[in-house]
Amino acid sequence: MSEFRRNPITGQWVIIAANRGSRPQEIVVQHVASLDRECPFCEGNESVTPGEVLALREPGSAADGPGWRVRVVPNKYPALDAALPDRSSVAQAAEPRTDWWQSVSAPGDGLHEVVIESPSHLTSVVQLTDAQFAEVLETYRMRINSLQQHGGFRNVVLFKNAGPSAGATLTHLHSQLIAAPAGNSIFADRTPFFRLHAVAQGSCLACEIERGLLTQPDLLVARSQNFVAFCPYASRLPYETWIIPRGHRLHFGETEQALLPELANLFRGVLVKLERIVKLPAYNYIIHTAPFDIAATDHYHWHIEILPGIANLAGFELGTGCFINTVPPLQAAAALREA
Amino acid sequence: MSEFRRNPITGQWVIIAANRGSRPQEIVVQHVASLDRECPFCEGNESVTPGEVLALREPGSAADGPGWRVRVVPNKYPALDAALPDRSSVAQAAEPRTDWWQSVSAPGDGLHEVVIESPSHLTSVVQLTDAQFAEVLETYRMRINSLQQHGGFRNVVLFKNAGPSAGATLTHLHSQLIAAPAGNSIFADRTPFFRLHAVAQGSCLACEIERGLLTQPDLLVARSQNFVAFCPYASRLPYETWIIPRGHRLHFGETEQALLPELANLFRGVLVKLERIVKLPAYNYIIHTAPFDIAATDHYHWHIEILPGIANLAGFELGTGCFINTVPPLQAAAALREA
Repeated sequence: MSEFRRNPITGQWVIIAANRGSRPQEIVVQHVASLDRECPFCEGNESVTPGEVLALREPGSAADGPGWRVRVVPNKYPALDAALPDRSSVAQAAEPRTDWWQSVSAPGDGLHEVVIESPSHLTSVVQLTDAQFAEVLETYRMRINSLQQHGGFRNVVLFKNAGPSAGATLTHLHSQLIAAPAGNSIFADRTPFFRLHAVAQGSCLACEIERGLLTQPDLLVARSQNFVAFCPYASRLPYETWIIPRGHRLHFGETEQALLPELANLFRGVLVKLERIVKLPAYNYIIHTAPFDIAATDHYHWHIEILPGIANLAGFELGTGCFINTVPPLQAAAALREA
Repeated sequence: MSEFRRNPITGQWVIIAANRGSRPQEIVVQHVASLDRECPFCEGNESVTPGEVLALREPGSAADGPGWRVRVVPNKYPALDAALPDRSSVAQAAEPRTDWWQSVSAPGDGLHEVVIESPSHLTSVVQLTDAQFAEVLETYRMRINSLQQHGGFRNVVLFKNAGPSAGATLTHLHSQLIAAPAGNSIFADRTPFFRLHAVAQGSCLACEIERGLLTQPDLLVARSQNFVAFCPYASRLPYETWIIPRGHRLHFGETEQALLPELANLFRGVLVKLERIVKLPAYNYIIHTAPFDIAATDHYHWHIEILPGIANLAGFELGTGCFINTVPPLQAAAALREA
């Protein structure tokens, strides 16, 4: 039995089609890491990357030298042109224009940074301790809050590509951060769904889901005092898991520092279970946090999306935006709970 | 220099970022075809697939036996539950419902079929002649028109996954077709963009683009009397190419049979050029045609989207829906013209 389902937070449709998972695979994909050059992210190679913008360091160690535990640097091959302009000039620069081909375009200004998550050549979050992963989350929080305070940005997307089948091009443990300037609403694609629901129902979509999980825990993966991990009913991908704070929070950066060890334990626990099931690091995670210019009356609820990179995205998904998921979320959640 | 661009027909944002294309790739992906079992799509193995629903056959040859040139069969591992119900029951069945988790869902009824495009074990359109590819297009047209005449369907999406990096699981040349029932508007995601533009400007988006290409041919890849191939200004992927009819046509099935050899020549020509550039078949193509229940006053213009499968779709794309394209469309179009 197949079913169409629409995720209320993303607006995206999915087809849940368990039957399709049993089809034969004629082609086997292998990934070969070429190890014939030095890793630019390892401790001691700091001069290979652009200069750091933030680092958790041993007392007395110098910037762009050894002695760091987590390090944030500009991406050497950025998707956006580095820009740290003042609020007014950015808002003006991002004014979209329409050209002869009816396309709307805007300057590609913003920031694209890399969070290097260990000085050693580790390749998976599983190899970190909970305490080390809490420091990674603390770095995310510090950097996101710093961009919010800057005032020149509207949005930040923090994401990890873990493993080659999830789009990683380097194996050393790292995440990336892309920030779009003030006036640019391109990445705020989930705000309207929260807003529409709030207007219609007077409540937050994510808070309602969290309450639902209390009484109908079949989609639950793990829960702690302040956070919950679950497989969305309309999961796009096999074993897709989301983590949300149990209280209503717009911004990831609002998370109290004292709660980061708890979040690290829950979040890393999910990734450990996921690697047990899919046998290797093969996932993306994305931290979705409210746009910085969100109105106080607007609804948003930060969330972490963990998307395993084990499925084929092919013509149907690219053409329609609708994903075919061969592992029903109820089954995925049960497998993750037991892993 | 990077730029944000929004495709007016899909509503999708892209970041054109040529600079990012030069980043190092530590990981090499290899695909290994396992040849240890019989191909279910080769002539002589017709009994391995479900019974054919359409075939171009030699006179006197029997259904589900040898003697065919193109053959359409139900997908043995369908994404949707096979349904050929009458119009009223489908419309009722597809009525969406909202569940406790605020997700909208609908029964996964519809059709999922495979178009087997050669009786021989060919693996690329490049290995067909123009005349053979014209017969493939003729089969697409016949099957799409047959589903339209049936009355129980609203939408059909026809797509090919060519090569493992584009999501193919079998190498034998084939495409797929997914049809959603009447009352289900899930795949009609481009209709609103045509409609909005028509209301605002009184014209068809695709017709305007076609006129623009006459005077500003930099994005042009190839042109014939009745069709044009071009790289969209807001291409999501490197070497992305679209083909549209030069006259205003809502439905692919309206294409006169006499024009199919011309379309086959142009379309196959683009795929030949693409394989010269990317060195192997690695692309998806999708035929987007108007919903069957479109109002006579609505605007839509059928189009073929060719999406090379050589880029990494990773956390940023999955999380934001915005693609990072490292080959600017002007450069892609020039390379394809010269290939």
